[in-house]
Amino acid sequence: MIPCRGRLEVGPLPLEQGGSLPRVELAFETWGRWDPQRKNAILVCHALTGDAHVAAHDPQDRPGWWEAAVGPGRPIDTRRWFVLCSNVLGSCYGSTGPSSPVDPKVPEARWGGRFPTVTVRDMVHAQRRLLDALGIDRLALVVGGSLGGMQALEWAVSYPDRVDAVAVLAAPPASSPHAIAWNEAQRQAIFADPAWQGGDYPPERPPRRGLALARMIAMATYRGRDEWAARFGRDAVPPDDDPVAARIGLYATAPRNEAERFRFQIESYLHYQGEKLVRRFDAASYVTLTRAMDLHDVGRDRGGLDQAVARVRGRVYVLSIASDLLYPVEEQRRLVRALRRAGKDVTWHVWRAPWGHDSFLVDAAGVAQRVMDWLDEPGQDAAGLEEGAAVAVGEGRP
Amino acid sequence: MIPCRGRLEVGPLPLEQGGSLPRVELAFETWGRWDPQRKNAILVCHALTGDAHVAAHDPQDRPGWWEAAVGPGRPIDTRRWFVLCSNVLGSCYGSTGPSSPVDPKVPEARWGGRFPTVTVRDMVHAQRRLLDALGIDRLALVVGGSLGGMQALEWAVSYPDRVDAVAVLAAPPASSPHAIAWNEAQRQAIFADPAWQGGDYPPERPPRRGLALARMIAMATYRGRDEWAARFGRDAVPPDDDPVAARIGLYATAPRNEAERFRFQIESYLHYQGEKLVRRFDAASYVTLTRAMDLHDVGRDRGGLDQAVARVRGRVYVLSIASDLLYPVEEQRRLVRALRRAGKDVTWHVWRAPWGHDSFLVDAAGVAQRVMDWLDEPGQDAAGLEEGAAVAVGEGRP
Repeated sequence: MIPCRGRLEVGPLPLEQGGSLPRVELAFETWGRWDPQRKNAILVCHALTGDAHVAAHDPQDRPGWWEAAVGPGRPIDTRRWFVLCSNVLGSCYGSTGPSSPVDPKVPEARWGGRFPTVTVRDMVHAQRRLLDALGIDRLALVVGGSLGGMQALEWAVSYPDRVDAVAVLAAPPASSPHAIAWNEAQRQAIFADPAWQGGDYPPERPPRRGLALARMIAMATYRGRDEWAARFGRDAVPPDDDPVAARIGLYATAPRNEAERFRFQIESYLHYQGEKLVRRFDAASYVTLTRAMDLHDVGRDRGGLDQAVARVRGRVYVLSIASDLLYPVEEQRRLVRALRRAGKDVTWHVWRAPWGHDSFLVDAAGVAQRVMDWLDEPGQDAAGLEEGAAVAVGEGRP
Repeated sequence: MIPCRGRLEVGPLPLEQGGSLPRVELAFETWGRWDPQRKNAILVCHALTGDAHVAAHDPQDRPGWWEAAVGPGRPIDTRRWFVLCSNVLGSCYGSTGPSSPVDPKVPEARWGGRFPTVTVRDMVHAQRRLLDALGIDRLALVVGGSLGGMQALEWAVSYPDRVDAVAVLAAPPASSPHAIAWNEAQRQAIFADPAWQGGDYPPERPPRRGLALARMIAMATYRGRDEWAARFGRDAVPPDDDPVAARIGLYATAPRNEAERFRFQIESYLHYQGEKLVRRFDAASYVTLTRAMDLHDVGRDRGGLDQAVARVRGRVYVLSIASDLLYPVEEQRRLVRALRRAGKDVTWHVWRAPWGHDSFLVDAAGVAQRVMDWLDEPGQDAAGLEEGAAVAVGEGRP
């Protein structure tokens, strides 16, 4: 019987970019029951600031980040499926990362800025070991969006014999220069905060302002243009009505005229999002995980994209979001084309959701239902989609 | 005879957002000769970090920011046209801005963080006064891109009887929430720099790192996705070969692993661009001018866009750049539709240039030639373009 919450050591882990981590633990959560006969395991992979808590385990439990997608009677129905999610290597929600002690016997000496560079392949490698430890030899599906989609794709290529199907949501085959540029600006925001101290800040004095700014930059790449135009437009918030600004003092050093005149609702929203993340996420993990995203390139050291996807044996579902500014549709098209050239079983959907990159989180139930419909109906794949003739699905819910 | 370089006081200036500037000077440059009979004046408006130096005045002079566009035998031919450009209000290249003294008798007491909020309308108002002072009663054309395009549009609406034609390049009728969000993140990067000191930093100790970071964020919105993919791809620069990083020490507080492993060419490019701007631009001007861009809304206090453009009397040329991430084509479409609804003479081109928002700077000669062709051939307007049937022009030069 696999527990619904746990943490397991998966041993020392050699790292793709060199060196190794002497001791890696992964925190995980599960829903439903693993049935070795039915091979009913689904691995859900979370995005940059996510954790293993995909959904509540009972009505009293707090909601998870993909709450509407997973549970009894929900699209990923836990009466039928066994669902597992582990916090990624390098994160700060129970798995080994920069805020973990280098040596568990000296808990106050944390990795901090010395935490090595990890890649999406390293994350997936650690996950595979976790599954080995839990006795799960086969996955019916690996599904994830953004960094989670990168992991799903790496699963299909790194361990083709272990996965029947993967669903890659809003993730590219490799990070583009634009995606790297936005991540680098975010890291520089953190590095520029005097509290950063090379990553060796004490837990109680993290680089709050730098991390908040990083989140502000990121938000502008996560959401849809039309969504923001409708939601915020050019409306202003009088500063007196702006409790976030007052509380976090982000305007403390702004010129008087900037702080006193007015600001736009969209600005208030950005500050709010920055503040929210600072309360729950570690800056050094943010640096580590954005770097892993930059390094994401499924073709690296495999002879390129075509050679890499030639390894895939399971079915592949690719979801593109038409309003995604971070990983635009063209990037998934490259992946889909490579998979088709290699003769793989791939289904591509372009989704006209208005919420930008985050659409896979905003309409969790809708996205998960689409993935599960595809998983259950191989006929859909047999029908095939002409290259470039992606189906526009869902009109989004404004 | 109007000098080819000068600075004029245009008096105290009441400001749209309240208050006034007691003393405003504008620095300007001119090319060619003003002919009051032929009304041959063209006003060129510069973008965010530009200045009045559009082009060299002679072969020994340093090149300007739109060098290939303006000069004898160039698209804006200075044997025929009198060209004028003034540094915008709030900037740092000779016109009144945050780095100017509040009182010229006390040169060391600069405006700094107390410089008031200015708008694009204020900039245009000051320009109109400059033209009055120079005796230029009519403009054959106002042309500009980005912040310059916002000014061109404001000219057409604020002073319809003074302009025969305007060319609005890569500028929207109003700044979108996304554009505001990107600007706000840039301002916060500056505010977070301890050297900012509320805008009252000494000239020799400006918030260098904050301004460099602001520029890095901005660059990711200025350039084209395909351009960067082709130019930088995912190539790496070994840190030892990265003189910019070593010189400016931006990686000084990075974790060892971040600084030592490698970084992507695109990152090196961003740092280089950041460093370049810091050497030539004032941080408080950057804050002031990005705020003016946020406040840009040609319909504000005029009953909305339709009412505002009803005032236009001259011809209007609108250039959209297909790869522009900052002001996407849809935003200019709104402007063009409003102008057409109001029965105005408008020509819209969607240009498939690869360089993103900056395309109007990258192919200066091509863009200027297109504008001047349109200016000389009213037949093109008479033919008219169907709504939504913008002509795709130029394939760009990779």
